[in-house]
Amino acid sequence: MSEKISGIAASAGIAIAKAFVFQNPELTIERKSITDSASEIERFDSALSVSKEELSVIKEKANKELGEDKAAIFAAHLLVLSDPELVDAVKQKIENEKVNAEAAMDDVSSMFINMFESMDNEYMKERAADIRDVSKRVLAHLLNVTFTTPASISEEVVILAEDLTPSDTAQLNRNFVKGFATDIGGRTSHSAIMSRSMEIPAVVGTKTITEKVENGVMVIIDGLDGHVIVNPSEDEIATYEEKQKQYQKQKEEWAKLVNEKTFSSDSVQVELAANIGTPADVKGVLENGAEGVGLYRTEFLYMGRDQLPTEDEQFNAYREVLEKMEGKPVVIRTLDIGGDKELPYLNLPKELNPFLGFRAIRLCLEEQDIFRTQLRALLRASRYGNLKIMFPMIATLGEFREAKGILTEEKEKLVAEGIEVSDSIEVGIMVEIPSTAVMADTFAKEVDFFSIGTNDLIQYTMAADRMNEQVSYLYQPYNPAILRLVKMVIDAAHKEGKWAGMCGEMAGDPIAIPILLGLGLDEFSMSATSVLPARSQILSLSKEKISSHIDQILQMETMEDVVKFAEENF
Amino acid sequence: MSEKISGIAASAGIAIAKAFVFQNPELTIERKSITDSASEIERFDSALSVSKEELSVIKEKANKELGEDKAAIFAAHLLVLSDPELVDAVKQKIENEKVNAEAAMDDVSSMFINMFESMDNEYMKERAADIRDVSKRVLAHLLNVTFTTPASISEEVVILAEDLTPSDTAQLNRNFVKGFATDIGGRTSHSAIMSRSMEIPAVVGTKTITEKVENGVMVIIDGLDGHVIVNPSEDEIATYEEKQKQYQKQKEEWAKLVNEKTFSSDSVQVELAANIGTPADVKGVLENGAEGVGLYRTEFLYMGRDQLPTEDEQFNAYREVLEKMEGKPVVIRTLDIGGDKELPYLNLPKELNPFLGFRAIRLCLEEQDIFRTQLRALLRASRYGNLKIMFPMIATLGEFREAKGILTEEKEKLVAEGIEVSDSIEVGIMVEIPSTAVMADTFAKEVDFFSIGTNDLIQYTMAADRMNEQVSYLYQPYNPAILRLVKMVIDAAHKEGKWAGMCGEMAGDPIAIPILLGLGLDEFSMSATSVLPARSQILSLSKEKISSHIDQILQMETMEDVVKFAEENF
Repeated sequence: MSEKISGIAASAGIAIAKAFVFQNPELTIERKSITDSASEIERFDSALSVSKEELSVIKEKANKELGEDKAAIFAAHLLVLSDPELVDAVKQKIENEKVNAEAAMDDVSSMFINMFESMDNEYMKERAADIRDVSKRVLAHLLNVTFTTPASISEEVVILAEDLTPSDTAQLNRNFVKGFATDIGGRTSHSAIMSRSMEIPAVVGTKTITEKVENGVMVIIDGLDGHVIVNPSEDEIATYEEKQKQYQKQKEEWAKLVNEKTFSSDSVQVELAANIGTPADVKGVLENGAEGVGLYRTEFLYMGRDQLPTEDEQFNAYREVLEKMEGKPVVIRTLDIGGDKELPYLNLPKELNPFLGFRAIRLCLEEQDIFRTQLRALLRASRYGNLKIMFPMIATLGEFREAKGILTEEKEKLVAEGIEVSDSIEVGIMVEIPSTAVMADTFAKEVDFFSIGTNDLIQYTMAADRMNEQVSYLYQPYNPAILRLVKMVIDAAHKEGKWAGMCGEMAGDPIAIPILLGLGLDEFSMSATSVLPARSQILSLSKEKISSHIDQILQMETMEDVVKFAEENF
Repeated sequence: MSEKISGIAASAGIAIAKAFVFQNPELTIERKSITDSASEIERFDSALSVSKEELSVIKEKANKELGEDKAAIFAAHLLVLSDPELVDAVKQKIENEKVNAEAAMDDVSSMFINMFESMDNEYMKERAADIRDVSKRVLAHLLNVTFTTPASISEEVVILAEDLTPSDTAQLNRNFVKGFATDIGGRTSHSAIMSRSMEIPAVVGTKTITEKVENGVMVIIDGLDGHVIVNPSEDEIATYEEKQKQYQKQKEEWAKLVNEKTFSSDSVQVELAANIGTPADVKGVLENGAEGVGLYRTEFLYMGRDQLPTEDEQFNAYREVLEKMEGKPVVIRTLDIGGDKELPYLNLPKELNPFLGFRAIRLCLEEQDIFRTQLRALLRASRYGNLKIMFPMIATLGEFREAKGILTEEKEKLVAEGIEVSDSIEVGIMVEIPSTAVMADTFAKEVDFFSIGTNDLIQYTMAADRMNEQVSYLYQPYNPAILRLVKMVIDAAHKEGKWAGMCGEMAGDPIAIPILLGLGLDEFSMSATSVLPARSQILSLSKEKISSHIDQILQMETMEDVVKFAEENF
């Protein structure tokens, strides 16, 4: 008898293969008293250094195969192993308490893991997972336990695991690993993000998959609907092979749209762009037929390292993206650090509410050296393509004027130095703070464009941390309040002859796309892999028909009403 | 030569007297090895218990003289001394490290103080101050150092101190202490809040006052403009005596309005209400001529204790307020816990962004036992006066419907039990989340009233933690975005024949009052001591004239433009 286990669809597609249940090595820690703490510390240092070497190799591999932003996690792991808060604490424990390195490492890492996990917050839990991943590696070396890796798999399988650590995921061999399912994790966990970028079907958060399935059992991973079928009947296999074929066919249909522009059925043109994190992502942007880069997050240039990137490093990255995009628009967002993205080397103070804190443009206007360096790199790169500069987290017109003033100063300095700078750089802002949406009419007179950042706009408008599971029910993209704010922004832009885009997750969401089209959105920026499905969907939508329903939608009382109407009518 | 030192005006009025520089006792901690840890722990226990007795006495005194909510701080201090995280850590340190109690207490409390201070956040810094205050007391007892208190002062002075702890402030003898100034603190620090409730002129945050002034020097505290004049000339003393006289005269003018209703110069009537925390505050409400209670924060019933208040305890408090208000409107807000207000006994998970977290109505809809108990107490009290029930932190219509549904259920149960419940209880909501302001038109069809909570509305609309100094420049009550949202709420209410009030700090702010009047606000709820100045101000304002400028104000681009216009025109 087959069994159907439900989870969260993390990466689209169907995989049918034998289960490879991936067990973590059993690390039994024996606590021992020691006398020679110096030699014990030496043993610890040596395990550290082997672990670092391994991680460097994995990082290189990930860098080549998955791109720089996916590899950033290993740079972060390497930093954990160099973090004096952890390393020194272990050594002190060995010395003061005369315990063996294994026990000391286990104590210290458990302390950090518990601390981060107790925060009951998606992001901090991921930090806990990082430390667990890294300390497992070090402990395995201390214990001389062979560290099994998915790299050793050499037949076609789907992997079932409690969780896949970033290092596990990065080592998956795409030729043999057809898909995976995990007990824990959500759509935004590292393994889920990586599965999408590797285009391997995946289901996460099944809770029980490793308990219920044994090695070698036949399994279907349905990454479209978020199910796992264990021990399927021949009929079921046939059904899913058909579903797989349909999905493949749909993908082929989508592929035909790769060089097309994007039009609605009544010939209204919009632009579909992609969000990227590093120059390496441009390949996926072009392969997926995006018409531009709607959001280049520059944070990755600053992360996973121990000092600020130089002006030249930044210039090279921006130039590379602009050149590869060959004149297509590239919106580069200036540094959006703070909030859930920390840079250890900036030594920013801990905040009680980092999402409401000193981040992004607020930090850049204060730490102007950092900001000016980035602006100079952007300005110098501008002549290599179609650059648009975007400031994040703008809350007041005063902030925009100050940021733009600094940009103008740097431009004038460069020109005085004889350096060529493009004269047609558009300068716009993210609209992700409610005040800015409400005041969009005044902003529209001074900015060149808006890009609505829905992830933050929703969390501030609903006053609900999008990472906090207890209030996740308030993360409501379809709440009429959000749609009204989006309309204010689009209308304000159009009134002044400017364009309005969106670069939050909502822009690629099939339920939201018709409504956004009806509201008049000009540019939709999404994950590269969403571009072709979105183009295909828009082809079938009549903007005029949807627009005629917009007033009615904006008068609805709840998100549920909106979703029901959209599903029934568009 | 006199010197003028600037600070923050914390409590209005002028004080002229000799300086009493209040020094903290010097507590020198010697670290000693001990052998008999049992007797050392006993010594610690005895210091704890003497400290607790003292604090109980101070708490009683504060309770009587300052009211229950001001005394709550001492209940919190008592809880610190019963907190196993602190007490057990000290005892373990004595036992494991064989150190004396003083060193152990100093180590543990410093650890906690550093932890809270490093959070770089107004609220957490206050927690650090609490622990410092409490541990100083315990250490003084351990060291047999006499703990100087301002209670010993017996001549007319103004007190100058680095900071005044809550226990210091509570012990100030109003007959002798004419005012105070401190080096540190802000308008919302405990000492500032207490100075206002004691009506002692105070200036805080002078940075250097204790350095620059010696005992016995003549000093003027100008709590109106936030200055301290050290060693004033006779002319200056005369000037400030005149200023003091003017202020006194103005207070007398205000006092004449105590039994008046509130009308603008063109005879438009509004209601001026007061915010309270406990039944004891009703006295101040009546003395200051408030026409109702616009916000009764019920949190104090739940704070500074180790379990939930019973239904009867709550009933008694609500009944007392309703009876004392003799039929005047009393808006009671249901529990708004979470965010910056924690209840240790609820064991809520730590959150990364508590202001965007599981708080207020979100918690009440989940923990329905707590909510239903409060609603029953409110319903039972309803027949003793003019009760209006208000739900905090409503973000969606669904939440309001659910909360009101629970209220209706409890009402039906009570009626079935034969208990009398008023039939005319209005049920309204706080508007403090941007989505609710934007959707006010749909809410207005179902609620009986709105009360705009500006403190939170501003922080969410601007995405800036109001406790975080680094982004305090974004706490902008006069930002046109805020004014536009306020207008949406008022207009929506009026369209449905409902009333709209405001219970944030903005409602009592002399710059905001004309604009709010012009926007059509019906009810202004503020600190009791602000009611008479506000009534006096409104008497001189023409609503019609201000209303004619509102469109112009809402089209302004920045807060600065609004303030400038208001100051020049109203």
